[in-house]
Amino acid sequence: MGAREVGLPDVVGGVGLPDQVTIWEVGPRDGLQNESVSVPVDVKLEFLDRLADAGVSVVEATSFVHPKWVPQLADAEELLARLDRRDGVDYPVLVPNERGLDRALAARVGHVAIFASATDSFARRNLNRALDEQFAMFEPVVARAKAEGLKVRGYVSMCFGDPWEGSVSRGQVAAVGKRLLDMGCDQLSLGDTIGVATPGQVTALLGEFGSVERIAVHFHDTYGQALANTYAALVAGVRTVDSSAGGLGGCPYAESATGNLATEDLVWMLDGLGIAHGVDLDKLCDTSAWMAGRLGRPSPSRVLNALRG
Amino acid sequence: MGAREVGLPDVVGGVGLPDQVTIWEVGPRDGLQNESVSVPVDVKLEFLDRLADAGVSVVEATSFVHPKWVPQLADAEELLARLDRRDGVDYPVLVPNERGLDRALAARVGHVAIFASATDSFARRNLNRALDEQFAMFEPVVARAKAEGLKVRGYVSMCFGDPWEGSVSRGQVAAVGKRLLDMGCDQLSLGDTIGVATPGQVTALLGEFGSVERIAVHFHDTYGQALANTYAALVAGVRTVDSSAGGLGGCPYAESATGNLATEDLVWMLDGLGIAHGVDLDKLCDTSAWMAGRLGRPSPSRVLNALRG
Repeated sequence: MGAREVGLPDVVGGVGLPDQVTIWEVGPRDGLQNESVSVPVDVKLEFLDRLADAGVSVVEATSFVHPKWVPQLADAEELLARLDRRDGVDYPVLVPNERGLDRALAARVGHVAIFASATDSFARRNLNRALDEQFAMFEPVVARAKAEGLKVRGYVSMCFGDPWEGSVSRGQVAAVGKRLLDMGCDQLSLGDTIGVATPGQVTALLGEFGSVERIAVHFHDTYGQALANTYAALVAGVRTVDSSAGGLGGCPYAESATGNLATEDLVWMLDGLGIAHGVDLDKLCDTSAWMAGRLGRPSPSRVLNALRG
Repeated sequence: MGAREVGLPDVVGGVGLPDQVTIWEVGPRDGLQNESVSVPVDVKLEFLDRLADAGVSVVEATSFVHPKWVPQLADAEELLARLDRRDGVDYPVLVPNERGLDRALAARVGHVAIFASATDSFARRNLNRALDEQFAMFEPVVARAKAEGLKVRGYVSMCFGDPWEGSVSRGQVAAVGKRLLDMGCDQLSLGDTIGVATPGQVTALLGEFGSVERIAVHFHDTYGQALANTYAALVAGVRTVDSSAGGLGGCPYAESATGNLATEDLVWMLDGLGIAHGVDLDKLCDTSAWMAGRLGRPSPSRVLNALRG
């Protein structure tokens, strides 16, 4: 069945909502790095091609993290060497440090992302540094990337809660984010890494930044809140939303269900709200259904299951 | 793990949100009637007891629809005869027509619900009547129920889209709803029966009613929009929300994925927003996990899977 053959209500937007949103597709990076099944580089390349064919304009392609930590993405060089980089499609890659940036520059990448933490506990666990020490690691990465003419995104993880610290102060999150912006990051992506946030918290955190012009949001659907939180962010004026094709990156039946917001579910909401995004839902569903077959498990995307289940 | 042992952000509400919400639990009726596995009456009784123990204050217990149409609920008389009706818990039942009301009165029910359609196509298919003819069927039901001192809820189904008609006019939905209120219904429950709505449509439809004092919302999560739509309804001042324990009533992997919003996912959002509701999330999760075991399939509730997966 075609995506739009079901009876649909008229499009209705709302006060304050943007006319257009950029979907920042993270499936090939944030999605696959959390999948336990090893995915061959040929499948990844087909995935990236299919996403571009579906109209995705930003797709985070891979990560130059050390292969010891993320074996799934150890093929980053080969992937980027063989990738058919389409006109009009941006392919950012994650670089954890200067060594990662060296690899990204060698691969002729034009857009990189660094991955910072809003909390001391996660900074120590993920980066082996105290909260304030992470900036010393990122400063030369951002400075060199900018000097080379690259765009730089700064992820801020654990913005709404941290499994070791509990509640995270909004002021602390905003201070980390502003420091990354001051360092030269073109955009921040505020992440609910453990998926616990609810819409009031989203609105309040965004309010700490004054302007949301350079702010993106990145919600995980662990507790089913991702789309409600996205709606709150759109109402606050956010115009870049991260999501993962098919909800790739977490199985809803695993104990550590940490899946990203499914791009299909986001597209459904944006379509109903009349917000332009450029993605063809039918082609996207075909792509995610195909990838679910490669991974050998059902997708957690509600829209995908309703249309292709 | 206890429901609240994960690190959680501080509670943050928002402008216009209610302080308190009534969760209208529909799992035993709307949930079970859509489950293919036959559930013994003893299991249903334990389910109702556990929901009351978890703090649910309104639980739609069963339906007096003809057993030919819903064999799962053919045991309505036995269920209500044996049910331990707790003080402070309201146990409404669905009555499709006068015959259903007769059975409800004989079972000493104090609260009934009728099930109307916002569209002509669904009225004809579900009620075998044209849109306007349905009121002739409901009028004596509501009049007699009110004369007997019962409370009456009016469901309005297909409020946002209809698989046979497509878009449904808000004016038509509002006209159906207002006619039910004028007839004597104490409350309306506006249902997105096929789960297609998005938040702007919710806000717009609620705006047709002037006051939302007597309006409840009933969202299905077929396309993953239920909680975002609920948030939009809360912002518009709605104070009664329908949901189903464990998302009972639809498997996310079936073609006709028509599950209700999961009560656990709703509770998570209400807790984060600081909206009182009276439900103990731990006990509710235990109840839904137990029922999933009885049905022999995983629950689609994200919260349940995160906390008990």
